[in-house]
Amino acid sequence: MTVGIVGAGQLGRMLALAGIPLGLDFLFLDRSADTPASQIAPALIGELDDPTALRQLAERAEVISFDWENVSVAALRAAARGTRARIAPPLPALAAAQDRALEKRLFTRLGIPTTRCAAVNSRAALARAVARIGLPGVLKTRRMGYDGKGQVVIRDAAAVEAAWGQLSGVPLLYEEFVPFEQEVSAIGVRGRSGEIVYYPLNRNYHADGILRLTLAPWHAAALERAAQRHLRRILQAFNYVGVLAVEFFVRRGRLLANEIAPRVHNSGHWTIEGAVTSQFENHLRAIVGLPLGATAARGHSAMINLIGSMPQRRELLSHVGLHLHDYVKTPRPGRKLGHCTLVESTARVRDRRARALLERLYPGLHLIQ
Amino acid sequence: MTVGIVGAGQLGRMLALAGIPLGLDFLFLDRSADTPASQIAPALIGELDDPTALRQLAERAEVISFDWENVSVAALRAAARGTRARIAPPLPALAAAQDRALEKRLFTRLGIPTTRCAAVNSRAALARAVARIGLPGVLKTRRMGYDGKGQVVIRDAAAVEAAWGQLSGVPLLYEEFVPFEQEVSAIGVRGRSGEIVYYPLNRNYHADGILRLTLAPWHAAALERAAQRHLRRILQAFNYVGVLAVEFFVRRGRLLANEIAPRVHNSGHWTIEGAVTSQFENHLRAIVGLPLGATAARGHSAMINLIGSMPQRRELLSHVGLHLHDYVKTPRPGRKLGHCTLVESTARVRDRRARALLERLYPGLHLIQ
Repeated sequence: MTVGIVGAGQLGRMLALAGIPLGLDFLFLDRSADTPASQIAPALIGELDDPTALRQLAERAEVISFDWENVSVAALRAAARGTRARIAPPLPALAAAQDRALEKRLFTRLGIPTTRCAAVNSRAALARAVARIGLPGVLKTRRMGYDGKGQVVIRDAAAVEAAWGQLSGVPLLYEEFVPFEQEVSAIGVRGRSGEIVYYPLNRNYHADGILRLTLAPWHAAALERAAQRHLRRILQAFNYVGVLAVEFFVRRGRLLANEIAPRVHNSGHWTIEGAVTSQFENHLRAIVGLPLGATAARGHSAMINLIGSMPQRRELLSHVGLHLHDYVKTPRPGRKLGHCTLVESTARVRDRRARALLERLYPGLHLIQ
Repeated sequence: MTVGIVGAGQLGRMLALAGIPLGLDFLFLDRSADTPASQIAPALIGELDDPTALRQLAERAEVISFDWENVSVAALRAAARGTRARIAPPLPALAAAQDRALEKRLFTRLGIPTTRCAAVNSRAALARAVARIGLPGVLKTRRMGYDGKGQVVIRDAAAVEAAWGQLSGVPLLYEEFVPFEQEVSAIGVRGRSGEIVYYPLNRNYHADGILRLTLAPWHAAALERAAQRHLRRILQAFNYVGVLAVEFFVRRGRLLANEIAPRVHNSGHWTIEGAVTSQFENHLRAIVGLPLGATAARGHSAMINLIGSMPQRRELLSHVGLHLHDYVKTPRPGRKLGHCTLVESTARVRDRRARALLERLYPGLHLIQ
């Protein structure tokens, strides 16, 4: 059975590495011949919304998924029409994830607490939104935001004009600034038959808008229960198939939904070594209609992203028990080039080792005490 | 860095799956374009001893290894001459593994207990060997034996002639028949700098000469110590680099060395999920000169080979926590098509679940009580 994947980045690469042992075949589509996933599986070369390339993918694959959420919903829908290819996760979930305003409306409609916000299409609308929601706040593009891109914090009234100047021209969203205490994410999987499994809760640490560190399981029983309740509502609302991640802020012990990702998620990379079945394998099991795998944690994991430049492989692998995932990407400031995972028998040992490793990789960046 | 591998079977496939996350590239050589490893890495097509193809491999790879032990030592040596390519494991170890008589001499020279045997090159030599070693015994081809092929048990004097008729024409070995109680194997890894790590001991169960089941760790402290002592002698004798497996019979609580495999070994497949670092990753770390990874077990593993025909994927994956490895080979009686691994928190649970799974896969074959 062939799985077609739009986008051939590191998520596609790790999907293929997880699916090949199951006997699955892969076919990717991406703009360049030199991508993380094309090292290990065939790839069509073309724009991600190119009708001919997408059509070819739909004709050669039994199921189509995506490793990037900013792919064109309309182009995907058109390509699959009349072919036997299913698309998973479902396109309405993808559409919601692509637009911050739709995403917020989804949370509200499902009774999932989220930040206050307003869509902004003009300078006057921004002024009204600031007046209603207050300062500080965050002005964000509704579409194409990731890794902290496309957003500006507005600290006071004097900064409104500059933010407008920086982002106007595309649909925007003004959102209250939440001085949160923690960021967590919840990852769930829904199979074709409707069965749902959840991974343990992740605690995430960002710097410069980019995820640096995930600790999992993050033992916070009440938060985990609430997160899974929210996740379930979203999975059921979309008749979802595949892995879904939801990011939350934690403010005064309560979750505030920030965004959804209708795909495998960076905060779930620890599941490769740290859970019985990885998020990658479970995404594939779900979309090809196989039984879902167990999601229990194996030990206590820390996942650290390797950003901007790759450390020496020899140095990294000298850390006992470190698992390296090199995406073989060209280094560039702020670019995710790989990740590494430590799995320890206690949370205390994990935190100590993660702290020491972070200090080696990002001196001066103190994410955890 | 490119790793060249002669042979593109399932061992090569699992080596590539382990090495790609480390950022390694692979290039295989095999007779057919349709092999387990060529699904995920480029492959040259040619005979395994073809000088031109081997030369090409040596010119494009920094290190050459093999996934099958019956490759030509002379052809490999000639191909690497004058190139920068190292060969690992070392060719003298490969040569010893290819010839049962050399292998036995190696054990004897290193003081490793083994079965009594004699090289047999004529009918008269067979008669002398039977007279000296006694009956029953096993007549084996010295070369090209695997999975029980190329050997005949001689139960009494009347059977000598038939065995001779069946195998004569190639160099043979006559060996005492050992009514052993158990079969175990030990897997070790030696790095370029001479560091050695050992995996926990494996207990192996064969049927029809083919490995069906491995349980690991097999808790038998005295046997494990002895096995590691023997393994160390062999690793050091060859100035070995890479993974080495040694199979032993256990007779009256003592080890008798049966054979060596200078490569990753079927009885070590459980290490993918059941050890901190898999044998595949550690073989690669050793041969490319990286620090070796931790070999500690994670839980209690049972590895079951899928032989002759593939069970339904859906049925297999409905077993909670089962890890499937499909080699995507064409089914054929007696052929290893894949394996699956269970990792449990206790040996008792592992044994119970392995027994139940074996009963589903091979009804009537009672390997474990």
